[in-house]
Amino acid sequence: MDSSGVKVGIIMGSISDEPIMREAKEFLDSIGVPSEMKIVSAHRTPMEMVDYGHSALQRGLKVIIAGAGGAAHLPGMMASLTPIPVIGVPVKSSISLDGWDSILSILQMPPGIPVATVALNSGRNAGILAAQILATSDEEIMKRIVEFKSSLVEKVSDMNIELNKKLNN
Amino acid sequence: MDSSGVKVGIIMGSISDEPIMREAKEFLDSIGVPSEMKIVSAHRTPMEMVDYGHSALQRGLKVIIAGAGGAAHLPGMMASLTPIPVIGVPVKSSISLDGWDSILSILQMPPGIPVATVALNSGRNAGILAAQILATSDEEIMKRIVEFKSSLVEKVSDMNIELNKKLNN
Amino acid sequence: MDSSGVKVGIIMGSISDEPIMREAKEFLDSIGVPSEMKIVSAHRTPMEMVDYGHSALQRGLKVIIAGAGGAAHLPGMMASLTPIPVIGVPVKSSISLDGWDSILSILQMPPGIPVATVALNSGRNAGILAAQILATSDEEIMKRIVEFKSSLVEKVSDMNIELNKKLNN
Amino acid sequence: MDSSGVKVGIIMGSISDEPIMREAKEFLDSIGVPSEMKIVSAHRTPMEMVDYGHSALQRGLKVIIAGAGGAAHLPGMMASLTPIPVIGVPVKSSISLDGWDSILSILQMPPGIPVATVALNSGRNAGILAAQILATSDEEIMKRIVEFKSSLVEKVSDMNIELNKKLNN
Amino acid sequence: MDSSGVKVGIIMGSISDEPIMREAKEFLDSIGVPSEMKIVSAHRTPMEMVDYGHSALQRGLKVIIAGAGGAAHLPGMMASLTPIPVIGVPVKSSISLDGWDSILSILQMPPGIPVATVALNSGRNAGILAAQILATSDEEIMKRIVEFKSSLVEKVSDMNIELNKKLNN
Amino acid sequence: MDSSGVKVGIIMGSISDEPIMREAKEFLDSIGVPSEMKIVSAHRTPMEMVDYGHSALQRGLKVIIAGAGGAAHLPGMMASLTPIPVIGVPVKSSISLDGWDSILSILQMPPGIPVATVALNSGRNAGILAAQILATSDEEIMKRIVEFKSSLVEKVSDMNIELNKKLNN
Amino acid sequence: MDSSGVKVGIIMGSISDEPIMREAKEFLDSIGVPSEMKIVSAHRTPMEMVDYGHSALQRGLKVIIAGAGGAAHLPGMMASLTPIPVIGVPVKSSISLDGWDSILSILQMPPGIPVATVALNSGRNAGILAAQILATSDEEIMKRIVEFKSSLVEKVSDMNIELNKKLNN
Amino acid sequence: MDSSGVKVGIIMGSISDEPIMREAKEFLDSIGVPSEMKIVSAHRTPMEMVDYGHSALQRGLKVIIAGAGGAAHLPGMMASLTPIPVIGVPVKSSISLDGWDSILSILQMPPGIPVATVALNSGRNAGILAAQILATSDEEIMKRIVEFKSSLVEKVSDMNIELNKKLNN
Repeated sequence: MDSSGVKVGIIMGSISDEPIMREAKEFLDSIGVPSEMKIVSAHRTPMEMVDYGHSALQRGLKVIIAGAGGAAHLPGMMASLTPIPVIGVPVKSSISLDGWDSILSILQMPPGIPVATVALNSGRNAGILAAQILATSDEEIMKRIVEFKSSLVEKVSDMNIELNKKLNN
Repeated sequence: MDSSGVKVGIIMGSISDEPIMREAKEFLDSIGVPSEMKIVSAHRTPMEMVDYGHSALQRGLKVIIAGAGGAAHLPGMMASLTPIPVIGVPVKSSISLDGWDSILSILQMPPGIPVATVALNSGRNAGILAAQILATSDEEIMKRIVEFKSSLVEKVSDMNIELNKKLNN
Repeated sequence: MDSSGVKVGIIMGSISDEPIMREAKEFLDSIGVPSEMKIVSAHRTPMEMVDYGHSALQRGLKVIIAGAGGAAHLPGMMASLTPIPVIGVPVKSSISLDGWDSILSILQMPPGIPVATVALNSGRNAGILAAQILATSDEEIMKRIVEFKSSLVEKVSDMNIELNKKLNN
Repeated sequence: MDSSGVKVGIIMGSISDEPIMREAKEFLDSIGVPSEMKIVSAHRTPMEMVDYGHSALQRGLKVIIAGAGGAAHLPGMMASLTPIPVIGVPVKSSISLDGWDSILSILQMPPGIPVATVALNSGRNAGILAAQILATSDEEIMKRIVEFKSSLVEKVSDMNIELNKKLNN
Repeated sequence: MDSSGVKVGIIMGSISDEPIMREAKEFLDSIGVPSEMKIVSAHRTPMEMVDYGHSALQRGLKVIIAGAGGAAHLPGMMASLTPIPVIGVPVKSSISLDGWDSILSILQMPPGIPVATVALNSGRNAGILAAQILATSDEEIMKRIVEFKSSLVEKVSDMNIELNKKLNN
Repeated sequence: MDSSGVKVGIIMGSISDEPIMREAKEFLDSIGVPSEMKIVSAHRTPMEMVDYGHSALQRGLKVIIAGAGGAAHLPGMMASLTPIPVIGVPVKSSISLDGWDSILSILQMPPGIPVATVALNSGRNAGILAAQILATSDEEIMKRIVEFKSSLVEKVSDMNIELNKKLNN
Repeated sequence: MDSSGVKVGIIMGSISDEPIMREAKEFLDSIGVPSEMKIVSAHRTPMEMVDYGHSALQRGLKVIIAGAGGAAHLPGMMASLTPIPVIGVPVKSSISLDGWDSILSILQMPPGIPVATVALNSGRNAGILAAQILATSDEEIMKRIVEFKSSLVEKVSDMNIELNKKLNN
Repeated sequence: MDSSGVKVGIIMGSISDEPIMREAKEFLDSIGVPSEMKIVSAHRTPMEMVDYGHSALQRGLKVIIAGAGGAAHLPGMMASLTPIPVIGVPVKSSISLDGWDSILSILQMPPGIPVATVALNSGRNAGILAAQILATSDEEIMKRIVEFKSSLVEKVSDMNIELNKKLNN
């Protein structure tokens, strides 16, 4: 795996989205995929957003993960500004309507400009999906994904041990 | 009223929004406010959108009316690109989820960047609101608004005549 | 900018709406637009509401901001009683159904009587929108709006500094 | 039963609500309760609405049935203007959001000003409820209500005959 | 006003509904209308429910107020069992889905069997509505309702005094 | 399998529910389980409903399938009146709010009185579930269920043949 | 009643669902029905899920209760893998969208593969329903169900005593 | 671009999903990416689903697009069975609840198993997203994506010509 340059750009509309979005970075770090995090606001810094989108391909980014809450326009706008795949993370922030606004304004993109939307507040799943995308052409990352999926099986084994302890008490 | 230049820009994401959005223009025409209509897509023509927003104030526009359906980003992005007031029209287009996505992605803007949202498919109300905004500094337009509101009273009178006919049959 | 008289009337259905609605006043204060705050209840004091609406234009008000929760009728009724633009603020009060009732009963106005609706609990955005409306005919206020929008860019810069600190820890 | 004067006022926001609201009148006619129908728009004719509400008790009305769609303010405003009970009929009109807006803006009234809300488009049930209210002090009407409820049992008997025919074919 | 017998029956599905439903009783107590409170569960004690409904008219009850949460069948079943008007109070109990289930299963009654539904958790409004119904044939109660409505105006006056204190600090 | 007596009672609130509910009967017929269909309305014939529920066990019924729309109380009330399992079918009838009211008023039953709810308008699935319940103690019916499930695999095979034809055209 | 073998399998997607799902086991324990609990994740251990479903009938299980939150696929997948009846429990877990996602992804099964869905978080009702299903062929269990339903009547009696104490204070 | 083998597997739960899903294939065909279409039902053919998922990586598939309606488990189950990225298409089929069930049961996946969800009925966007994923390691496909995005700009130009014609009539 080529680890010399940043492969995944993780952007968000506000510092308040950071606890969710850092989970994406932590997963990517854990499997050795270089990523960067930045606050890029569709509504407060539209031109920085344009620059980020327009330069993404040339800078070598392969995937962008964008998170936002409320009327969440950052993922969709990013998808309009770059040909690389954009993963959208709806965030249930203090300004959102129980998360419904975040979900619908990220998911319901018009024909021609998809956003790969993940579940509400699922920063980690966005990181996993980004890695899966990179793994389509990188056997090393694919190996890590396969290992990660195996670890999920073990996690359920551990849960069953915990459950049996509860049942025997 | 100075009618030399266009005062209200009416933009929409797709030609399919035109039947709703033309109602805004028709109201403005009816009270003598010059307006323009243009298709500006947040997702397909983001740079044209940026140009439209950035030049609006200098071009003498006083209000922008923006309509879109589904993940409707045009009104909010326009609000981020210009200091003039932006009126958002949620459109229940074929790509929208009964209109809920359009409403929430226009209405639920974050702190600092309001969009003046009107009811689903209410192009005409957007035109009226634009006129009310202009009327805050234009006595002639205010006179027209007052007349228009009087006409609503007459319309209810007419409805009561119609109702009485139905009751007497 | 003429600061002699009150330009924006901020009304609400209950004292419990005050923390949200004062954000409108604070923004207007910050850019030097004179405003007033008053409790006017559509359901408890309908005739005071009628008087407020009927006298608004003559008293020199340019914009009314009305906030309410639950079956929120104040913004729409105010829009029926005055020709000046009315901004509606849906409030997620203790009587509201997660805010959906407030939003829908303010937003979904019938043809002829628009309310410029902002996001749930967005008193501050209502103040900004009122200022934008006044700025359509007041260069001084427009200058302040432009400055305010620039400050949003700086806020994102600060957030990025904070984010980088977190990332380096 | 005193049938000399109108006992129930049936009002609606628009002629388009008439097919729903006439069902209330038809039920009241069928059991001999005098009623009147009128279009009174909260948003287009607010002062006529105030007059209607303020004079209702003196005119001898015992119950008001008010129907409206979208941001439906007529029932709640009527409840604020008169001490007599107000029955609200949410109407799924062309301007409404599948009826959710009509329901929530009629039902979710604040403390102190109830509206007796019936199901979406249930003009007939509003008429029945008005009759039940009058029947609390009128034995003749109560007798008719009891008869009406018996007729519902017969209707189910008829349905079972129809069902058995279908099953035997 | 005849205060010898109970006029309003207040029933609920569970003791957990009591804090909401007692507000109905407290209002009725405050204006001198005799009422009773009882737990009658549609699902746990269906035959007690049938008895309560079938005997209501003979026992001299004029109105029944029924509250329940979740799949709230008590108000609608009561309406099927008695000809007297039934007021339904949707309760946001621990078993309810944010109150939506309570509202819809009380409000959306089929043709022929209305329930006078009030807002979520609005026990007090149910009491006021019951009093308004009794007031249609009782001038003393009507006088109290009118006084109560006047007190709402004073409450807003007090709120404005409080608001002005806040503004001057 | 003992086919001498009726094993499954299929009831519904109105003849309009028949097209949905007959699918349950047709499935049960197809695998040789005797069933009966009847209209039993919770709101129009509450005492017939009580009788049906109270006699079900003695009459030898093993399962009841109950369908209703809007404020759908029949399934839950039946569950309160009999110890045998009750399957609820939410029906999207003309009186229902897109089916949400039917679903929530059937599904959200309080502790102690479950209703086995199936998908909106899924009369056939209710029949299948009733058969599965009977199959827990009847090997013949279980054999039919297993065969039925195999037939679903064949149906997908057929669909793939159809799909390939479309792709080759 | 044959208590030699496990009759009901209770499975869940995660240890976090255990507090809800154990209520099913506790009810079954209380009436002497042997059951087992296990964590079987549709998404983390799909092949264990397949094995559980494929072996259920041979292992002598009569009913499976499956609980899950968010995109809750376990109940529906289990229903596709076994001919025995599957009861689904939607869980409002931390990953769910107020429970709506859990409910809809369990309830809305396609034709041919029903899941007997109970209310949100209703583990206990799932246990009761499982017992009712077993009681269709087991008189001892049916006796316990009938006793249990009687106890619900007593519970309401106790609640009325508590209510009267509150009223007399 | 290597076109020797199938790169994208397009699967769906029913032949009724084909009109939506074929749009994915048509887009991929248009840019020369080999794909296959197959009906694989999570609920009717669970073992075929397992086989499809388990063999996907070895067969050389790079991306799977899965569409389904109602309780749509196919995309999420596929994501649990393969390490390659899965794109989910919620379909508003006749069995779905206006599409909400399809969306939530695809989108709201638990931690560890993301599905890249696109908008309701957006088969074409799923095809575009699959191509973007392949383009992360294939310059030829990336070139086609960039050209495709340019064509969207032209489409808006054409729409503006059409709009101007309408305005001049």
